[in-house]
Amino acid sequence: MERLLRKCQIRNQLVRECMAECLGVYVLILFGCGSVAQVTTTTDKKGQYLSINLGFALGVTFGVFVSRGVSGAHLNPAVSLSLCVLGRHPWIKLPFYVLFQVLGSFLAAATVSLQYYDAIQAYSGGELTVTGSTATAGIFATYPADYLSMWGGVVDQVISTAALLLCVLALGDQRNSSLPDGLQPVLVGAAVLVIGISMGSNSGYALNPARDFGPRLFTYIAGWGVDVFKAGGGWWWVPIVAPCVGALLGTLIYEMMIEVHHPLSPPELQTSCQEATEGKMGLELEGGGARL
Amino acid sequence: MERLLRKCQIRNQLVRECMAECLGVYVLILFGCGSVAQVTTTTDKKGQYLSINLGFALGVTFGVFVSRGVSGAHLNPAVSLSLCVLGRHPWIKLPFYVLFQVLGSFLAAATVSLQYYDAIQAYSGGELTVTGSTATAGIFATYPADYLSMWGGVVDQVISTAALLLCVLALGDQRNSSLPDGLQPVLVGAAVLVIGISMGSNSGYALNPARDFGPRLFTYIAGWGVDVFKAGGGWWWVPIVAPCVGALLGTLIYEMMIEVHHPLSPPELQTSCQEATEGKMGLELEGGGARL
Amino acid sequence: MERLLRKCQIRNQLVRECMAECLGVYVLILFGCGSVAQVTTTTDKKGQYLSINLGFALGVTFGVFVSRGVSGAHLNPAVSLSLCVLGRHPWIKLPFYVLFQVLGSFLAAATVSLQYYDAIQAYSGGELTVTGSTATAGIFATYPADYLSMWGGVVDQVISTAALLLCVLALGDQRNSSLPDGLQPVLVGAAVLVIGISMGSNSGYALNPARDFGPRLFTYIAGWGVDVFKAGGGWWWVPIVAPCVGALLGTLIYEMMIEVHHPLSPPELQTSCQEATEGKMGLELEGGGARL
Amino acid sequence: MERLLRKCQIRNQLVRECMAECLGVYVLILFGCGSVAQVTTTTDKKGQYLSINLGFALGVTFGVFVSRGVSGAHLNPAVSLSLCVLGRHPWIKLPFYVLFQVLGSFLAAATVSLQYYDAIQAYSGGELTVTGSTATAGIFATYPADYLSMWGGVVDQVISTAALLLCVLALGDQRNSSLPDGLQPVLVGAAVLVIGISMGSNSGYALNPARDFGPRLFTYIAGWGVDVFKAGGGWWWVPIVAPCVGALLGTLIYEMMIEVHHPLSPPELQTSCQEATEGKMGLELEGGGARL
Repeated sequence: MERLLRKCQIRNQLVRECMAECLGVYVLILFGCGSVAQVTTTTDKKGQYLSINLGFALGVTFGVFVSRGVSGAHLNPAVSLSLCVLGRHPWIKLPFYVLFQVLGSFLAAATVSLQYYDAIQAYSGGELTVTGSTATAGIFATYPADYLSMWGGVVDQVISTAALLLCVLALGDQRNSSLPDGLQPVLVGAAVLVIGISMGSNSGYALNPARDFGPRLFTYIAGWGVDVFKAGGGWWWVPIVAPCVGALLGTLIYEMMIEVHHPLSPPELQTSCQEATEGKMGLELEGGGARL
Repeated sequence: MERLLRKCQIRNQLVRECMAECLGVYVLILFGCGSVAQVTTTTDKKGQYLSINLGFALGVTFGVFVSRGVSGAHLNPAVSLSLCVLGRHPWIKLPFYVLFQVLGSFLAAATVSLQYYDAIQAYSGGELTVTGSTATAGIFATYPADYLSMWGGVVDQVISTAALLLCVLALGDQRNSSLPDGLQPVLVGAAVLVIGISMGSNSGYALNPARDFGPRLFTYIAGWGVDVFKAGGGWWWVPIVAPCVGALLGTLIYEMMIEVHHPLSPPELQTSCQEATEGKMGLELEGGGARL
Repeated sequence: MERLLRKCQIRNQLVRECMAECLGVYVLILFGCGSVAQVTTTTDKKGQYLSINLGFALGVTFGVFVSRGVSGAHLNPAVSLSLCVLGRHPWIKLPFYVLFQVLGSFLAAATVSLQYYDAIQAYSGGELTVTGSTATAGIFATYPADYLSMWGGVVDQVISTAALLLCVLALGDQRNSSLPDGLQPVLVGAAVLVIGISMGSNSGYALNPARDFGPRLFTYIAGWGVDVFKAGGGWWWVPIVAPCVGALLGTLIYEMMIEVHHPLSPPELQTSCQEATEGKMGLELEGGGARL
Repeated sequence: MERLLRKCQIRNQLVRECMAECLGVYVLILFGCGSVAQVTTTTDKKGQYLSINLGFALGVTFGVFVSRGVSGAHLNPAVSLSLCVLGRHPWIKLPFYVLFQVLGSFLAAATVSLQYYDAIQAYSGGELTVTGSTATAGIFATYPADYLSMWGGVVDQVISTAALLLCVLALGDQRNSSLPDGLQPVLVGAAVLVIGISMGSNSGYALNPARDFGPRLFTYIAGWGVDVFKAGGGWWWVPIVAPCVGALLGTLIYEMMIEVHHPLSPPELQTSCQEATEGKMGLELEGGGARL
């Protein structure tokens, strides 16, 4: 069997990375949106807000475990963007990563919809709505609270994603905190957990354009209709644009306050020299991305 | 004392593995079904759905700790089957593993029933029923939600078990994520936790033929009667068959999307050569199983 | 300052161990009974049963961290007893360990009572009772549920403590699961967590004669009166005797099913020879205890 | 980009440490007070007391991750003070650390207030009050429970902070428990979690003068007015003074009962000699602080 599988081996690095990102985001959304579906369709009887927080947190953890050795486990266009800006990921790969991240979340939303088909039918009485007392669109994409203004929502997503990047960059900064290898995916999940606990009520902490847009697109196609884009005063673009701004802001803050001030350590000085001599920048940067 | 115990030493590897699997599943079900018993008999006063999720998750963690060094801690016929298909476990051992896994869960169900004897009597008024407001059969085996169709249940169990295998294979794939040794049982437990949180409400996430069949058999014998097989339209075969299908599906997805594409690493190339020369395939595969 | 403190250094190993056991149990009960006090006096508003489970679990974790390097962190007379029977701890130390474990839990109960003095007065209206709607004795010691028979309680405590020892011995068995050093106290805490979640509702999972008797003695003296010994039909002896029986049973099961069957590893064979030659059994056994 | 950032590099060690402490406390309060804001403004629908406990616990964890490699992650004037008294941190740095810790918490309170602006307006009807049914000052600073006397509050904060230091010193004591590097921030967070679970209901477990005073000052300026200092009978000074006393008490207990009695290990003896010869005390002490 293993020999048979080996025949299908793909050696192209980019294809492998795209498949890993796709599967990583798939796992993240499968567990994340699945936990919302469970809480929603059982009206809080088999779960509560905390279990949604845990669902997304552990979804991120296992999404990272599934993909980190291959693609570096970005799982989020805003993270990929930040790494490109920092020079730790090649710009040329950005559109491929984003595309497969969205594909993964789209497929996961479809799977959740399949697994909870009977439950959603029973809960909603067969009517797939975006608002109202038996609305089920919130299982898949995020919508703002009633009181939230558009600007309030933008600020909310910028702050949350900045906080995420602060944590993720600190976890990946070997000169600040050296982590045992296997702990890092767990702690990235813990960062998502605490953001859900402390910044989740305003608009559902998307933090991630792919996490939000893929499932929203699925609901648009699968029967919830154009309301998924109209609801919340046309909310849909906020979880796409604001996380990118927030990710860059968080990156800037961490770099300006902590990382750039680290003294150059001896091995690093050595590496710098080596790089200059051998011009092997590309691989090294990949390594940096993978550390994330 | 220790010298006395040493006299009982058994050197047969298969006997040791069967005892380890039996004790591992025993621990898993003791904590898992125990947590359901606590929530059921206290009508959610000393626990809630989340504590059942934690009970099974930590049950798996400690079940793995108890048995991993000896048998590789499969604890699940569907996992054993997948490893056999992958060629990482010898087919000849499969029936023994399955038998002792079922035995372990049967004995654990009996222990839970003993420990909660007074509580179950007080809660149910002495009547052991499978359905109704004071039903207690759900403490031991899984039953589908009212709204769930048979096909919906099959799909549910296939997806859940596929998700489990995705996570477990990623955790065991050293070329993807290298874990500190002691963290792996904790993370397998975390995978079961997140599946319980995001895929538990449809039919109680059996994920494991032994987890479901052993306790069901116990309830059949111990006074709940033939209803345990009749309930849910003859639901009992679903948590036996669907997890096996799901486990194979999850294995296939992880292998096709991630594992087979790993480039051969130098030590592995070396090992391959060595194996070819020495023909020592068996032991090596065992090692692979134990890693899980 | 540090130089000043160093003048107080005590070099006697047994005195150091007794102080460590005392402080370890103190921390365990401070957090454990503190969490019950918080849940009781706020009538579940600032905590629920799960937070009591977490309080005892993390209490154990930090109790172990405080004492493990010095005394091996038994923190429980039933654990000390099992280690003596296994020959991993000298019998001569047993009474000292037990005495200081009980002293630690007594002092911790006094501290909790001090910290929650105003809260207990406000909640109970100034009347310290063992039963009734504003009973507060349950903050300190365990009492059985109304439905529980005496035999049911004995069985409950025997099974729970056997499960604890199964987990603890598996965690300490290097040939079964080799743990990173710092993870072990966390996982012993996790074992207590899962026992609280799955075996807590019958009689409050004492698991530990010192955990129960020290605080009970404190309540007897501090104003709750002789009822603390009379309640539950004279329940007080069960959490002292049954955990000792359970600990021995759990030890026997783990040894007979797993540990004695491990093949002797080469370093161990070597050590055995060395021991035989040098007669240095004592220190080695201590090491075994400390591993726990 | 990275080259551009490098131009801003600051080499002064104290400036770097102050920025790290500021950002560390910022992260701690952002997540901590954010979780209170979420629970308060959703009236427990998207969180409960346990999520506040988790918010502060993980806030501490990520605050430590952000700053430990640079400043040693004190994040708390009471901790800085204890380390100075122990001779593990230079007194001269104390005022700078405290100042930037308070600055960090002030800025974080402002950020939480910005992120939850719409939510607070909707919840409070636009009136920012310290007491009453829609009070929102408790989102930022701590206030005592109605039943708590001033002395009870002082005792409460002294005990809680002593417990915190007991745990933190045990975690940092390499001769007691040697931790894998990355686990330490998680376990300091766990200590804050268990204190919140077992000692949180009396007065909100400030444990930290900076955590309480910075946000209180912010609320004073931002519209809650002078009531934030008057409420609870002039409570505001308790979470400043009592934690310092408690931290010293906890330090004393741990040192007297455990740490000073450790036998000198060979490397340490060697270091002592080396120090005496080279007079390089300063750097070594810094190292001790950083371990925390």
